[in-house]
Amino acid sequence: MLQTPYYLIDKARLLPNMEKIAWLREHSGAKCLLALKCFATWSVFDFMAEYMDGTTSSSLYEVRLGREKFGKETHAYSVAYAEGEIDEVLAHSDKVIFNTIGQLLRFEAQSAGHKRGLRVNPGVSTSDFDLADPARPFSRLGEHDPEVIATVADKISGFMFHNNCENADFERFDAMLSLIEQRFGHLIRQMEWISLGGGIHFTGEGYPLERLAERLKRFADQNGVQVYLEPGEAAITGAATLEVSVLDTMHNGKNLAIVDSSIEAHMLGSSDLPRKCQGRAKRGAARLDGVRKILPSGRYLW
Amino acid sequence: MLQTPYYLIDKARLLPNMEKIAWLREHSGAKCLLALKCFATWSVFDFMAEYMDGTTSSSLYEVRLGREKFGKETHAYSVAYAEGEIDEVLAHSDKVIFNTIGQLLRFEAQSAGHKRGLRVNPGVSTSDFDLADPARPFSRLGEHDPEVIATVADKISGFMFHNNCENADFERFDAMLSLIEQRFGHLIRQMEWISLGGGIHFTGEGYPLERLAERLKRFADQNGVQVYLEPGEAAITGAATLEVSVLDTMHNGKNLAIVDSSIEAHMLGSSDLPRKCQGRAKRGAARLDGVRKILPSGRYLW
Repeated sequence: MLQTPYYLIDKARLLPNMEKIAWLREHSGAKCLLALKCFATWSVFDFMAEYMDGTTSSSLYEVRLGREKFGKETHAYSVAYAEGEIDEVLAHSDKVIFNTIGQLLRFEAQSAGHKRGLRVNPGVSTSDFDLADPARPFSRLGEHDPEVIATVADKISGFMFHNNCENADFERFDAMLSLIEQRFGHLIRQMEWISLGGGIHFTGEGYPLERLAERLKRFADQNGVQVYLEPGEAAITGAATLEVSVLDTMHNGKNLAIVDSSIEAHMLGSSDLPRKCQGRAKRGAARLDGVRKILPSGRYLW
Repeated sequence: MLQTPYYLIDKARLLPNMEKIAWLREHSGAKCLLALKCFATWSVFDFMAEYMDGTTSSSLYEVRLGREKFGKETHAYSVAYAEGEIDEVLAHSDKVIFNTIGQLLRFEAQSAGHKRGLRVNPGVSTSDFDLADPARPFSRLGEHDPEVIATVADKISGFMFHNNCENADFERFDAMLSLIEQRFGHLIRQMEWISLGGGIHFTGEGYPLERLAERLKRFADQNGVQVYLEPGEAAITGAATLEVSVLDTMHNGKNLAIVDSSIEAHMLGSSDLPRKCQGRAKRGAARLDGVRKILPSGRYLW
């Protein structure tokens, strides 16, 4: 018996996700990069690398992890790079994506020999949850004005749009991609590659994968670009559980169990999520027979 | 220049807190143990140990840290101990405080030679914030029924009551202590020591320290017990800042600055706090001239 708490990653449950990703790559022409900000457990990178094209990152250490442990294609992105880290970022990446024109210009000379991209914020998103919505009012994520972006189009070869979040609705993705084409199409057609980010829940049960493949292929063909997707949650959904032990039980108005884990130590961020997104945390407790509800601070109700 | 981000702990600002603690110890007779769950930066433990009696903990590794790096008296507490850690907890502590009678009985044989205590939940608190309120409905923290607690009074020598949270109001503390005496006084008088926990903001500007000292002394004398306090925030308030650099600025409806830190990496838990408690996070950003507001995810508004 392994000592709890631990995360159990089940390759047999990871495989169907990987096979859907491989199928989508083949039929859409899109490349799929694992988003390390969602999942960075490198013990299964060898396995995942057979089905995916590489990794994308959101910090210096993530880009190094991707390059050193996953291999293949490595994208670098960060909300802002510091002077002291940009050279190492460039040394470990195939492409570098800047969050703003300010960052692009600041590191223009250092990144001159590198494939460069810019994050574009389309101003629309699928997220109903403000904290996780990259397109919320006053968002710091990406440039949003096509006229301003046009002034640096000759310095870059691609854009990253990342405005989905656990979006399981193909129609909504389709409509948003059309909005992006309407607003930024003339700029997109000047590029070589477009990343559409993560947050598309295409490995979920019943997702119309064929329609997604067709839509991505059409987008790539009509705009003359290589499409990238950056699945995180979609790549690993349903494949891992947090295994815990019950250390004590009590009754204080309700039956309570105390387990050897906590939200902040083992499911960081879960207590920031709105109720509907806490399903993720609940699934983590599925092995705790009879658990009805998981609460912040590692308290489970059953 | 040190590279940001870093925490700057200013001994000159820590000293007034330490002197107030030393004064309170002398005039009340209470012992003061640093709560490591609030502050565990052992580089200043030598300095703090000159003014305090020891440490209290909420996990195995905290109790070890206290014993090995702070020294002096070491209290062990945890919401629940696991079978595999209790021996090490006992080896590194002077007292062990169990959260429930269930835990006390489970480890009764192993802890037979040890000073033992029980956490008691008085069912009242000073917290207006449900997530941080130890006395909230269905709380898992401590035993609450005097009749049930009486059945194990001969197995323990003390109680821990911890139901304050950033309580700067002496009258409220006084009233709550009176409630505790009314409800649990007959049990308290069977004990040798009582910990009143942390969360009393007695190092704050204008706090009536003399009245607190008198109240604690009276409590100790009338009940024949040694009183312990477990200051965390009160010990270190105002003594540290999070030093950051601005990496990028932009205007997107508001002026935004991106700094090289984030809530989850450097001020964990702050985004769970209600607005009034986020003052702590704001103070952390005080060196960022002109900052008006700090938001989750490391975004600062100025």
